[in-house]
Amino acid sequence: MTDSGMQTRVRLARNLRKYPFPIRLSTAGKNEVCERIIEAVKNCNSPIKDELEVYYIKDLSEPERISLVEKHLASPEFVSDSTGRAIILSKDRSMSIMINEEDHLRIQVLKDGFDLDGAYDLADKLDTLLDETLEFAFDERLGYLTQCPTNLGTGMRASVMLHLPALENNRAISRIAANLQKLGLTIRGTYGEGSEADCAIYQLSNQVTLGISEQSAIENLKNITNQLVTQEEKAQNRICSGIDAQDKIFRSLGILRNARLITRDEAMKLLSNVRLGIISKIIEDIELQKLDKLIVDIQPATMMVNLKTQLSPGDRDIKRAEIIRNTL
Amino acid sequence: MTDSGMQTRVRLARNLRKYPFPIRLSTAGKNEVCERIIEAVKNCNSPIKDELEVYYIKDLSEPERISLVEKHLASPEFVSDSTGRAIILSKDRSMSIMINEEDHLRIQVLKDGFDLDGAYDLADKLDTLLDETLEFAFDERLGYLTQCPTNLGTGMRASVMLHLPALENNRAISRIAANLQKLGLTIRGTYGEGSEADCAIYQLSNQVTLGISEQSAIENLKNITNQLVTQEEKAQNRICSGIDAQDKIFRSLGILRNARLITRDEAMKLLSNVRLGIISKIIEDIELQKLDKLIVDIQPATMMVNLKTQLSPGDRDIKRAEIIRNTL
Repeated sequence: MTDSGMQTRVRLARNLRKYPFPIRLSTAGKNEVCERIIEAVKNCNSPIKDELEVYYIKDLSEPERISLVEKHLASPEFVSDSTGRAIILSKDRSMSIMINEEDHLRIQVLKDGFDLDGAYDLADKLDTLLDETLEFAFDERLGYLTQCPTNLGTGMRASVMLHLPALENNRAISRIAANLQKLGLTIRGTYGEGSEADCAIYQLSNQVTLGISEQSAIENLKNITNQLVTQEEKAQNRICSGIDAQDKIFRSLGILRNARLITRDEAMKLLSNVRLGIISKIIEDIELQKLDKLIVDIQPATMMVNLKTQLSPGDRDIKRAEIIRNTL
Repeated sequence: MTDSGMQTRVRLARNLRKYPFPIRLSTAGKNEVCERIIEAVKNCNSPIKDELEVYYIKDLSEPERISLVEKHLASPEFVSDSTGRAIILSKDRSMSIMINEEDHLRIQVLKDGFDLDGAYDLADKLDTLLDETLEFAFDERLGYLTQCPTNLGTGMRASVMLHLPALENNRAISRIAANLQKLGLTIRGTYGEGSEADCAIYQLSNQVTLGISEQSAIENLKNITNQLVTQEEKAQNRICSGIDAQDKIFRSLGILRNARLITRDEAMKLLSNVRLGIISKIIEDIELQKLDKLIVDIQPATMMVNLKTQLSPGDRDIKRAEIIRNTL
């Protein structure tokens, strides 16, 4: 179960009662909101505040900004404009607050593996803590007010990052996606942004925020995730008993352990195969956690941030191959 | 130098004075010739005879026959018909005598690496030894008489099996082939039988047998081989300093060390890349000799003979991958 679920995220969209939405704020207004939120966090009544670090987007380099996106800590839209924007991150990156994205606050909790309850509990705690001083815009009938109506109500988007190589291999994903829509959920490729994930990593998330409680939304997502993972496991068992799948998995590992240059896209595809090999116990000498970390570490901007240097695409392919060899 | 030269062969076409060429012999006639030759070998005045083993083609299974071809000990035509045919092999397979192929005798000496003098000396010794009792058909003007006029004269075909990955990569082989023809030599793919070798293994051999001494033919072949190998080495140095070649070489090794099923053709291509890696010192933990043995050991019929079992093509691909993994 935890093997298919790579990561769980819960994010809450919140706005301050006394200010217009960011889109209607002047630069000065955005800066004021930003400082208010940072102050509230710094002075909050919890030891959590010692874990939090503030980064103004304007102070971050291009690779540092993109790396935040690659690590799922910020949205591409957020880092594309620095006006009045900051991000608050916990040292372990499990908590993040984007300030002045679409809403004044986007509170996010990120957990390894499949842990919706844990992620929601922590997000809820942060929410309550900040609400004390910030006073979030809330309507008795509509719930939390957000700029985009699709977030109205709970303002919550919960998601699970799932590795579904066997279902992708079966071409079952598009059929599943159509059914999920009817259930108020959506699934899409996490890396690759298109309809199909290039490395079988998909993000399943709730779509409905109005007329449903946070708990119901979480329960619903949890149930569907469990069903999806069961389907994936069945498909994996069918596929992985065959020599063709074993061949594909070991060849992928052989290439990753030996290549001297490799593009992100090829690496992602091969890492997906190796991940399937680890889950299905075909590969026994690699830890899943190590592999999942590698998937993030080979993203272009994250590589440059970690190596503290600018790299051309060609040099990145060489460095990427080196990082992969050293890790696997 | 020895690295590009994988194997050296010298073969002499000889016929008994008192018998028509095999094509004009009845089955009884062929059998008589066959027995006479076997007797001469068994009773020859040299300790060599203790090294030699006689195999009647009719007693060999289909895979055993094809394996002789894969090991360059017999021609495909020879093993395709068993009538009055036998092959005499030394225990180490460095000497072979096909009886009643196109000519009564095809004496062959096979040496590892590039050793034309060594191969010719031994072939000459065997020739002299057998001539004592068998009396070969010889004409003062024409030299040794052979069924096909292209062998008339010395009856000698000397050849060097060369691994030329860099020249193949440069597409220089066809240009070289045209030039070699003018010099009385020919080059062709050893495995693959077509114009292009699928694994960059080529056979360079003399074509002219009339009006030239054995020594001259050997000298000529030796000089051209040295030139060709120098060209190959230059091209290798150019190619192998680049990361692209290193990537290709290590990926090939990674796949060979990890695949769970592999066809002969893919294996040959990858082994050729790995061989280039060994020669150019990019790969340091594999012995060249081990790799060259592997190239023969993964041929379909040789695999079945070594494993003493019949295998379907699918099962062969699995076994082949296993043999390669265990060797590399």
